[in-house]
Amino acid sequence: MNFDVKTYLKLRKTWVNEALTGIFSARKAPEPLFEAMRYSLMAGGKRIRPILMMAAYEIFRENGRDILPFACAMEMVHTYSLIHDDLPAMDDDDLRRGMPTCHKVYGDAMAILAGDGLLTEAFHLISDDARAGGWPADARLAALRELAAGAGVDGMVGGQAMDILSEHKEVGIETVRFIHARKTAALIRAAVRMGALLGNAPDNDLTALTRYGEAIGTAFQIVDDVLDVEGDTELLGKAAGADDKLEKATYPHVAGLAESKREAARLIKQAKEVLGPFGEKAEPLKGIAELILERNT
Amino acid sequence: MNFDVKTYLKLRKTWVNEALTGIFSARKAPEPLFEAMRYSLMAGGKRIRPILMMAAYEIFRENGRDILPFACAMEMVHTYSLIHDDLPAMDDDDLRRGMPTCHKVYGDAMAILAGDGLLTEAFHLISDDARAGGWPADARLAALRELAAGAGVDGMVGGQAMDILSEHKEVGIETVRFIHARKTAALIRAAVRMGALLGNAPDNDLTALTRYGEAIGTAFQIVDDVLDVEGDTELLGKAAGADDKLEKATYPHVAGLAESKREAARLIKQAKEVLGPFGEKAEPLKGIAELILERNT
Repeated sequence: MNFDVKTYLKLRKTWVNEALTGIFSARKAPEPLFEAMRYSLMAGGKRIRPILMMAAYEIFRENGRDILPFACAMEMVHTYSLIHDDLPAMDDDDLRRGMPTCHKVYGDAMAILAGDGLLTEAFHLISDDARAGGWPADARLAALRELAAGAGVDGMVGGQAMDILSEHKEVGIETVRFIHARKTAALIRAAVRMGALLGNAPDNDLTALTRYGEAIGTAFQIVDDVLDVEGDTELLGKAAGADDKLEKATYPHVAGLAESKREAARLIKQAKEVLGPFGEKAEPLKGIAELILERNT
Repeated sequence: MNFDVKTYLKLRKTWVNEALTGIFSARKAPEPLFEAMRYSLMAGGKRIRPILMMAAYEIFRENGRDILPFACAMEMVHTYSLIHDDLPAMDDDDLRRGMPTCHKVYGDAMAILAGDGLLTEAFHLISDDARAGGWPADARLAALRELAAGAGVDGMVGGQAMDILSEHKEVGIETVRFIHARKTAALIRAAVRMGALLGNAPDNDLTALTRYGEAIGTAFQIVDDVLDVEGDTELLGKAAGADDKLEKATYPHVAGLAESKREAARLIKQAKEVLGPFGEKAEPLKGIAELILERNT
């Protein structure tokens, strides 16, 4: 097989970075606010969510670049969530991707506003005729709905709330699953679904890809929890052992390291099986699933 | 003349409160998060922005209730901005509408997430077919665009950033105008424009109502600044003198109290003149403009 997932990722990461740079060079606002937004947005993220969106889209349509405004909106929402999660009032992290976190550089007020600005800008981008050019209104609304549902109280925000509320408490595996499904899997699921919806996927394909998104999203967070225990601060670019310090409700904490790794492997296997009917067109999604399991950063 | 603006406001406030209650009773999330969102959302706000939206709509269409999902989304965005502005890292206010602020009751983390949740929920509500029932996709997208533009980096978030950045600094009247136009007027302008757009207003009417929104929005903030100097903490329901403590860039600070009052009166006069061509249909908007000038809370 000739498919090389690393080359695939690299090209699309370039597309996303170029598109994000373009969006921000065309906007005006008080400079320290924009600097704070750009700082976190361009801090070397892997762009997994936008790339998943494009990969799902490309099962049904030719060119992933067609949905770059949506992919950029997704990355803005992801970045806002990192900025707010790192705040002293939340997880209080000083380091992210090997760099000082947004509030360490720009202060708490600018970091809160940078997050608010990125979240709002994501919705502005998709609703703006001049920038989400050419996509029909109903497709843009459907994409917005997925993004808002994945990011909101039934998704990421709800998961983050439960995560914070469970610190320093003994919780069971159901609570950890509740947190993982919302805090991490909801937005990854939304990314895959947005790509499929924009690609006009038939219902049964959308259902299959939704299951794929949930499975890799959950595995992603379990691997994250494992890396927090086993990983290296320098390699991770953020402080290892941070979960333990806050007595976070993590998968390794409730199920042990060995079972966590087995569960992540099971989920990735399941995600790949779901892709079966798509054949070669799903090679990118399959490759990304494998990378999620193997990642060490 | 028989038009009674107080009765008009009271009825519509009831509509908005009932609709907001309905939205939240149908949703599920970790309880302390929802409690924090509801606490601030139902803390006795005057619902000026949603009512302005309905009043603008009613110039062109019969029933303001038709746009309640949009009106509720607007109030959610306004409420999120209050929660985040009150945070210790921002304006550090303990009191709002006579009650402890969100973070004083639920802690900083839940307050940040409650704000994030409300902002996201606003966009979810409008993009959700099940809840923004019946409105065509292009009207919903246009409304979303107005909301996001008014709330984002070119609007409210940008204004709030400049407001924070100008604390403890000597700034000129241009900076105060920049802050007022964005921090306050942008969202009020968006409320009026959303009503007009949903009412399918002709272009020249939309232009006139945009000017009305800008004028009353700016006057609203000038009166707010004046009340912070002259008002009574008990009546205001928030600490008077807070601007002075932070050496905020306010209109009274750069232009004096007397000139601030004259400027507010000029703006309200201008707003009412713009409404001339709409005749009786604009009585509610005229009445609201007058109330903004006369308000003492």
